[in-house]
Amino acid sequence: MAEYDVIILGGGPGGYIAAERLGHGCKSVLLIEKDTLGGTCLNVGCIPTKALLNSVKLYEHARDSSQFGVVTESASYDWATVQEWKNKTVTTLVGGVAQMMKRLKVTVVNGEGHMTSPTTVEVNGEEHSALDVIIATGSLPAMPPIPGSVDNPSVVDSTRLLSIDQVPPRLTIIGGGVIGVEFASIFSRLGSRVTIVEMMDEILPFMESDLAARLRTQMPAVDFRLGAKVEAIEGTTVVYSHDEVTDRIEGDLILMAVGRRPLVNGWGADTIGLDYSPAGITVDDQMRTNLPHVWAVGDVTGRSLLAHAAYRMGEIAAAHILDGTAKDRGQVMRWDTIPWALYSSPEAAGVGLTEEECTKRGIEVNATTVPLVLSGRFIAEHGLSRAGMVKVVAETETRVIRGIQVMGPYAPEMIWGAAGVLEMEFTIEDVRQLVFPHPTVSEGIREAVWAFPDKKRNEQR
Amino acid sequence: MAEYDVIILGGGPGGYIAAERLGHGCKSVLLIEKDTLGGTCLNVGCIPTKALLNSVKLYEHARDSSQFGVVTESASYDWATVQEWKNKTVTTLVGGVAQMMKRLKVTVVNGEGHMTSPTTVEVNGEEHSALDVIIATGSLPAMPPIPGSVDNPSVVDSTRLLSIDQVPPRLTIIGGGVIGVEFASIFSRLGSRVTIVEMMDEILPFMESDLAARLRTQMPAVDFRLGAKVEAIEGTTVVYSHDEVTDRIEGDLILMAVGRRPLVNGWGADTIGLDYSPAGITVDDQMRTNLPHVWAVGDVTGRSLLAHAAYRMGEIAAAHILDGTAKDRGQVMRWDTIPWALYSSPEAAGVGLTEEECTKRGIEVNATTVPLVLSGRFIAEHGLSRAGMVKVVAETETRVIRGIQVMGPYAPEMIWGAAGVLEMEFTIEDVRQLVFPHPTVSEGIREAVWAFPDKKRNEQR
Repeated sequence: MAEYDVIILGGGPGGYIAAERLGHGCKSVLLIEKDTLGGTCLNVGCIPTKALLNSVKLYEHARDSSQFGVVTESASYDWATVQEWKNKTVTTLVGGVAQMMKRLKVTVVNGEGHMTSPTTVEVNGEEHSALDVIIATGSLPAMPPIPGSVDNPSVVDSTRLLSIDQVPPRLTIIGGGVIGVEFASIFSRLGSRVTIVEMMDEILPFMESDLAARLRTQMPAVDFRLGAKVEAIEGTTVVYSHDEVTDRIEGDLILMAVGRRPLVNGWGADTIGLDYSPAGITVDDQMRTNLPHVWAVGDVTGRSLLAHAAYRMGEIAAAHILDGTAKDRGQVMRWDTIPWALYSSPEAAGVGLTEEECTKRGIEVNATTVPLVLSGRFIAEHGLSRAGMVKVVAETETRVIRGIQVMGPYAPEMIWGAAGVLEMEFTIEDVRQLVFPHPTVSEGIREAVWAFPDKKRNEQR
Repeated sequence: MAEYDVIILGGGPGGYIAAERLGHGCKSVLLIEKDTLGGTCLNVGCIPTKALLNSVKLYEHARDSSQFGVVTESASYDWATVQEWKNKTVTTLVGGVAQMMKRLKVTVVNGEGHMTSPTTVEVNGEEHSALDVIIATGSLPAMPPIPGSVDNPSVVDSTRLLSIDQVPPRLTIIGGGVIGVEFASIFSRLGSRVTIVEMMDEILPFMESDLAARLRTQMPAVDFRLGAKVEAIEGTTVVYSHDEVTDRIEGDLILMAVGRRPLVNGWGADTIGLDYSPAGITVDDQMRTNLPHVWAVGDVTGRSLLAHAAYRMGEIAAAHILDGTAKDRGQVMRWDTIPWALYSSPEAAGVGLTEEECTKRGIEVNATTVPLVLSGRFIAEHGLSRAGMVKVVAETETRVIRGIQVMGPYAPEMIWGAAGVLEMEFTIEDVRQLVFPHPTVSEGIREAVWAFPDKKRNEQR
């Protein structure tokens, strides 16, 4: 039986970042991955979609830039080359993770790990023990039992859609979350007729509803069916009901994108006394489970299914394993300051609470929404043909900012600053004193804080 | 004689933002502009260059995206349409400023203003008085007396180059600052053979020299001549000396881009007792001049020639005019937290002090530089074919971050967050706890703070 300081079950973002931090901290680490290092994000999630979205953006630029003075004839795309670039991207980054593990002397074992006790894990017929175990088994696409969906070759999950041989003429997407909207953005711009069927009244539930509604108007090639409950799938046709009326969407391919479920089965959670449910493993804000020295990070906790949330969870678990006083240094999860990003066209990003969420929690807030046409760079790159928006939510009394959302170009790259603003509890007045570079789209955030109602009538800005 | 609360001399970024804030504060404001509202930035500076750079980017995407699966034949550009888009951008934004002035009831007068006393200004033969006067007369391109440059039709400044009828086959640029590098980026990508002649040993003096050197390698189509002193211009040929050897650059057009000089003459500075020099009007950190109730903001102060620095100066002058206690609310210029941005390809941006500047000031610092290939999005969009870098400088003892610079895509949009980091005096450890969205290029900043040497050997991250 090999002994380690830490065994990590799962080599996705939560697992590999914990391995990185622990390796750097000179711990002996065993990282067990049943498939490919990098997990969902790197292999079949954020990274390959970003590669596809980049190709689609370039194709669109080649095709639609005549008003900017670019002259092209017969702009088209070659799907095989698009796929090749995507695969090369994934291979490069998986290789990078493997190299890093090697450099930090992390032992990586390829195989299915099974926890045989809170401190022992069996893999490939061998048992290993450790002082601490971090569970980072991730999640799988949820496949709800819709009649006609099981074993239907026309129904695919996001993993399969990433690698299809050809672009479908018609694509029906069940679910208007990040995955659904990003794939809609990819395929609609490549010429597919895309329909999104969403059960709720609006897409992207974490987004301010006014921004989400506006985002839909910026994707005119996509047919959105909201408040639509899928009743059955018949071959390549989706049958849904809306206000007690039944309707059908003919298509060629159907993407099931209704979310992901934590992977809590099949690796021993049920036999070691772990507190978990289908919604995930129960953890505290230091990523401790109910079992001493057993930690859980990433999608499997069900708390956030974002790769960078997994990073942070992995870092926090590592920090506490490395140092018993980590909590005093602020090493706890602050769930309300994790940004999100959407890479559709237009892009969007946000951090903090929505106006609605604040109201639910009984926090009295003001909110301001401004259009991005106030940004000189936005106008220089889009004119008045596109819409973008920034919304800022702040407490009425203290003026502390509780939420910032941006719908428009570069949003994902500018939102880390907003996470900083929330972490440090900046007020409206604090952000007004920040200097934003000109001309940038990020100045939209500045415009939004300036558009905020003044504190008192007689107190000037 | 019409009386106002405030008269503003100059309708560029410093002037019009002061008018906006004062108008919002219900002051009666007279804004005098001799040319077009929006000043250098909007009419002949940042905005038109951004429109051109956007067209060039789209042209490059149309031409060079085959590895990403985009197939185009005969991608070319139509310079007249490029110019048309640029002009439309400027017109739209100038119109926006005019509308805003109208909405806020700011009186705008078109004409050359002359200060006849510290509280009176004459324009178009009429005299106006005010309780406060803000001087925001801006700057002009510097034209050093190089033999052969005066009245040479082949020597242009940036204003003229913006509107040339056709792209020159060969363009020689004297000066490797922001203006020179951005124009080099525009014309070299449109097919001009571009040479930059720079007197110093490196381009972009405000940039970390290792990043500037790397940026040059990312612009292989541009011929950089460093440490090169221009001796004369003979027709379309630039004669320069380097290490006591004389060389010549044949060309078709020569851009003089050696900087800009504050416009301190011609409007009465010499007759009212104002403290100024050719380097600018002397101001304190509240933008007060030596004369009571006379303020100066923007380029004319010579303190910073960036539009967003002018914005901030205009805001600060306005804040103090509106409220005598503004200083207590932090309304002072903090020169070290003004970001800069460069929109060449690649882009770059930074804020704070360089490592060298810290050393000069006697601040003991550590610095870390990381490559952007650590970012998944960077790889997805560029592979390993391009280089990008992030450098972070922090005080050795306190770990407070003093400078952040990024050379790579999206840099200008992510740098406002770095300005916030510096304003709030975040430490390395504070930024390590921020959650950056994945996958973004902004994560390069996160990688740089993690690459920082640890505080003590036994204290873990």
